[in-house]
Amino acid sequence: MTDSKQSLRLWLKLLSCSTAIEKKARAMLTRRFDTTLPRFDVMAALDREPDGLTMGALSEHLLVSNGNVTTIVARLVEDGLVTRTQDKTDRRVLRVRLTAKGKRDFRLYAAAHEAWIEQLLGDLADNEIHHLLSGLGRVKTSIERSGL
Amino acid sequence: MTDSKQSLRLWLKLLSCSTAIEKKARAMLTRRFDTTLPRFDVMAALDREPDGLTMGALSEHLLVSNGNVTTIVARLVEDGLVTRTQDKTDRRVLRVRLTAKGKRDFRLYAAAHEAWIEQLLGDLADNEIHHLLSGLGRVKTSIERSGL
Repeated sequence: MTDSKQSLRLWLKLLSCSTAIEKKARAMLTRRFDTTLPRFDVMAALDREPDGLTMGALSEHLLVSNGNVTTIVARLVEDGLVTRTQDKTDRRVLRVRLTAKGKRDFRLYAAAHEAWIEQLLGDLADNEIHHLLSGLGRVKTSIERSGL
Repeated sequence: MTDSKQSLRLWLKLLSCSTAIEKKARAMLTRRFDTTLPRFDVMAALDREPDGLTMGALSEHLLVSNGNVTTIVARLVEDGLVTRTQDKTDRRVLRVRLTAKGKRDFRLYAAAHEAWIEQLLGDLADNEIHHLLSGLGRVKTSIERSGL
């Protein structure tokens, strides 16, 4: 098999692994918490920012999950999990923050999510994880150096 | 670091690698061919099926790229790249096929896509790719056996 076919195989395998884990996480978030991955991603981004995020910054964080941020935030506001207020320094800007309830709920989701990932990857020994992490680190470096 | 943190690190690294590659592929498809990843994914699914696919089967193929299949197919029809016709055996079912032009265009996209992936992963030696493929194979097995 040529090099280019091997690279393609690696890419397809990477994609299929991350899609499979994401699919399981989506299903578990729905089943256990009646929530969605885009909602989880929004709350995770906000949980890392005590001062909250502007709608623009939030959209940039969420390229991955592709949800419509405005709609997601509106629903989270309805559910009392986030607030959306005018920025102090620029009133045209909306700033989004987790409420106390939002923080509590996110802690539950995040702990469960971590346990699911551990279960999903539970067959792998420490040294296998270690080797994968270093191999994937090489993938990241290669992408950055590719000039594409 | 505990096991569960290591699993989480591996998942985040997997996600960040596949997101990074996907982002580059999206940008290149737009820049070089003025097309999108969901269009590419639809055409790739159809290219593997000489008899085409029903709209339903196509939607299932495309959970990954999350696009609105009906809209994507309508645009591809407008551009002369696919046809959408009633199924012979069940007239309520729409069957989608690549046109000759669709097949030719897809060959160009696919060859370029393969070259980009090779460039993106070009730093990795054969044995590194080999080890990653086997490690990711173990990830797949672990997910399947997790019972989640």
